[in-house]
Amino acid sequence: MTKIEQVIHYVDQQLKSRRLTPGMRLPSVRSLAKQLNFSVSTVVNAYERMLSMGLIESRAGSGFFVCAPLEPLILSHIEPIQDQNLDPLKISRQLLEASSFLIKAGCGWLPDDWMPHEALRKAIRDTSKDSVFELMNYSSPLGLSSLRELLARRLHTKDINVTPEQILLTDSGSYSIDLICRFLLKPGDTVLLDDPCYFNFRALLKVHQVKVISVRYTPDGPDIEAFKQAIIEHHPRLYITNSGIHNPTGATLSQSKAHQLVSLIEHANMVVVEDDIFSDFETSASPRLSALDGLKNSIYIGSFSKTLSASLRCGYIVTKSEWIDYLIDLKVATSFSHNNFSAHVLYKILTHGGYRKHIEQLKIRLADAMIISIHRLEKIRIQPWIRPKAGIFLWCELPTDINIQKLMSYCTEKGVILALGNSFGEAHTFQNFLRFNIAQCMHPDFFNILEDAMQYASMNRPLNSL
Amino acid sequence: MTKIEQVIHYVDQQLKSRRLTPGMRLPSVRSLAKQLNFSVSTVVNAYERMLSMGLIESRAGSGFFVCAPLEPLILSHIEPIQDQNLDPLKISRQLLEASSFLIKAGCGWLPDDWMPHEALRKAIRDTSKDSVFELMNYSSPLGLSSLRELLARRLHTKDINVTPEQILLTDSGSYSIDLICRFLLKPGDTVLLDDPCYFNFRALLKVHQVKVISVRYTPDGPDIEAFKQAIIEHHPRLYITNSGIHNPTGATLSQSKAHQLVSLIEHANMVVVEDDIFSDFETSASPRLSALDGLKNSIYIGSFSKTLSASLRCGYIVTKSEWIDYLIDLKVATSFSHNNFSAHVLYKILTHGGYRKHIEQLKIRLADAMIISIHRLEKIRIQPWIRPKAGIFLWCELPTDINIQKLMSYCTEKGVILALGNSFGEAHTFQNFLRFNIAQCMHPDFFNILEDAMQYASMNRPLNSL
Repeated sequence: MTKIEQVIHYVDQQLKSRRLTPGMRLPSVRSLAKQLNFSVSTVVNAYERMLSMGLIESRAGSGFFVCAPLEPLILSHIEPIQDQNLDPLKISRQLLEASSFLIKAGCGWLPDDWMPHEALRKAIRDTSKDSVFELMNYSSPLGLSSLRELLARRLHTKDINVTPEQILLTDSGSYSIDLICRFLLKPGDTVLLDDPCYFNFRALLKVHQVKVISVRYTPDGPDIEAFKQAIIEHHPRLYITNSGIHNPTGATLSQSKAHQLVSLIEHANMVVVEDDIFSDFETSASPRLSALDGLKNSIYIGSFSKTLSASLRCGYIVTKSEWIDYLIDLKVATSFSHNNFSAHVLYKILTHGGYRKHIEQLKIRLADAMIISIHRLEKIRIQPWIRPKAGIFLWCELPTDINIQKLMSYCTEKGVILALGNSFGEAHTFQNFLRFNIAQCMHPDFFNILEDAMQYASMNRPLNSL
Repeated sequence: MTKIEQVIHYVDQQLKSRRLTPGMRLPSVRSLAKQLNFSVSTVVNAYERMLSMGLIESRAGSGFFVCAPLEPLILSHIEPIQDQNLDPLKISRQLLEASSFLIKAGCGWLPDDWMPHEALRKAIRDTSKDSVFELMNYSSPLGLSSLRELLARRLHTKDINVTPEQILLTDSGSYSIDLICRFLLKPGDTVLLDDPCYFNFRALLKVHQVKVISVRYTPDGPDIEAFKQAIIEHHPRLYITNSGIHNPTGATLSQSKAHQLVSLIEHANMVVVEDDIFSDFETSASPRLSALDGLKNSIYIGSFSKTLSASLRCGYIVTKSEWIDYLIDLKVATSFSHNNFSAHVLYKILTHGGYRKHIEQLKIRLADAMIISIHRLEKIRIQPWIRPKAGIFLWCELPTDINIQKLMSYCTEKGVILALGNSFGEAHTFQNFLRFNIAQCMHPDFFNILEDAMQYASMNRPLNSL
């Protein structure tokens, strides 16, 4: 690329990422030359080239302006990610596209046969007999009242005291968070995320074109000093987290951190979104920010994708009464309604005695899988960051002699999909980390394949070892 | 309100509608005084009051800046609507909240018992026997391939020639349009809408904070001269329409208008979103913009809410190959997946012989309802704007002696919900119009109630007539 082409490329990147949009003024020739460390004449030539390409126009006395049409919102252009393996959207799509034959050791959901399929089949059959009105009609704006009443009772047991009118059903947890981002954010706002955090939060925030500040996550919640500092420096508007069982670390928020966070959030006049979709896996109650602050500066999100079905989707938003009407308006405007049939099926499963039993058995099965996974991983020198109290995730560090690219490619070859640590974090902090799904790890071939992969990827292995 | 309070109220409105956001500079005292036609000292006093309230701050030499926190995105604050009866979101919510006992003569969907409930129940039961993988797992990003293959074949019959890989399943038609708005729009862009048009388009575009320009709709499509003029004056980026069966008018696009529109859209480098959710009601093929331009500058939207079920929702986007990947990314980032169960159920109904028969019978039933409705309405002096070729809508004009508020309140009292013309249009162009749903009008009591309401609301009625 010549220098002139480099300048054009730079402006093109600005257009693609929508930092420059139609009608906006380009930087002056002089300031761009200084910024890119090129001569003024190089930039002049580049601008002239772009003028003749019809990308920009010159207005006498006031400079150069964009006249190219607006670029569509292409997430991969917003800030191009060099390593495709770390692109959160590529990871999500790879996992969503994976056939049932692969070992999805890196995914965020249970194996199909761990899910309550008989209960689901029965609830579906029962719902097929519902009234024509329920089967055919749009839902009411808030959603099925009996399900919201049930959710309110379940929330009471977590000390989140709300009426059913404070619960808004939606099609999923992700959609719920998106709706809240629309409600509370403007492009350019700042949002705090845990580091590491669920990778799709980053993708979602790209859509909202906000600035993300990462706060280091410790084994009992975010680093409070770093959280304070981020508030002082960046005036964030929102903090999105999982406090019950944290994704990807499996950590649990401590009482003391929860208390400190609630105070900080209140003083900073910001809002926390508590994404609690793993809460049904919990074995002992951990604090919830929404319980502590009484939904004053917090919004609670739930869903059934992890424990009931990811195919019949249903999520919900719990918020203060003052905000419900505005959120309904946004929901009606952007998707009109939600899947009412799913809400009916889920209500039937949840009120059937079998569900509680299923969850109890699931917790025991997960506890066993946790012990086995830790044991098998430690044997091949993969070290859990913490021993989670519950849940499906194990966040692990690899020894330094492992070439992570080789590990990945060996596993991919053998039909095993891993989740690389870096995709959950900012920059390259988690280079040597992996998130394991302990339920998916129970696949009979998994640990043997991983053991071979570790040998193959070790830089210390003797030359004749393969 | 004192003059000072009026200034504060004005600034508060700017904050609520997010036209002023944190960190933005307020207009200078002098310019605001001029704009509101108040004295400079009034504005100075108002600014001082707001300073002490902590809403704004003063920076030496550079003016006053907003320091109030960002207002949430409250749609009803964006541009407050004086008459609640005309607020598109209030209308949608009223219809969604309406119980099955009301006569929803103004709604946009069929009565429950006109829907294929036996076929739906059977398809649900059949789907309950599907593999655990299908019942429990997230869908692939594009969605059920057999359904997309079927849709591609159906689209071929409309001369829209696409591969299944150009079809993206979503949870609804509304969600699909929202996703496209996210992809192609930025706040401040201009979008063309038909006047009148489906009221929820306006609500959706408020969320995207774009400028809406209305183009008069004629009995065979938009007024081409007005469309041209709007392009020249406003450089729109998008045009959203229903070309098959237009909502609310029931009109059909003519070949000649379709051809002219495609040329105009191509020259203006804009995109048309063709929302074709009523297409299964069509009795003879009318032109589709997406067929004419080969999806070059058009995107096609479909859904099954109107003909199969509004409870088990499923919609889809049809677009050129180059855009599919970007739309998948946006879908994954904002809602991760969609309801895969619904896609399976709908596929089973669509491939079952019963569906075609159901639609054929439905069309005959609708044709009858159209004749009856026109006859009954004309008898009470309510004049259809056109006689639609097909569909469920009849767009009608009331005689000038009718007090529309009285008509509404009488009907509401009797459990009949009407859709006022003004809610579909800009300003007060459609003061004397109503949109009727001819299927809902077949309720045995409807025309009698409406006849009484017309008498009650007529300003010519003799004083002793009630």
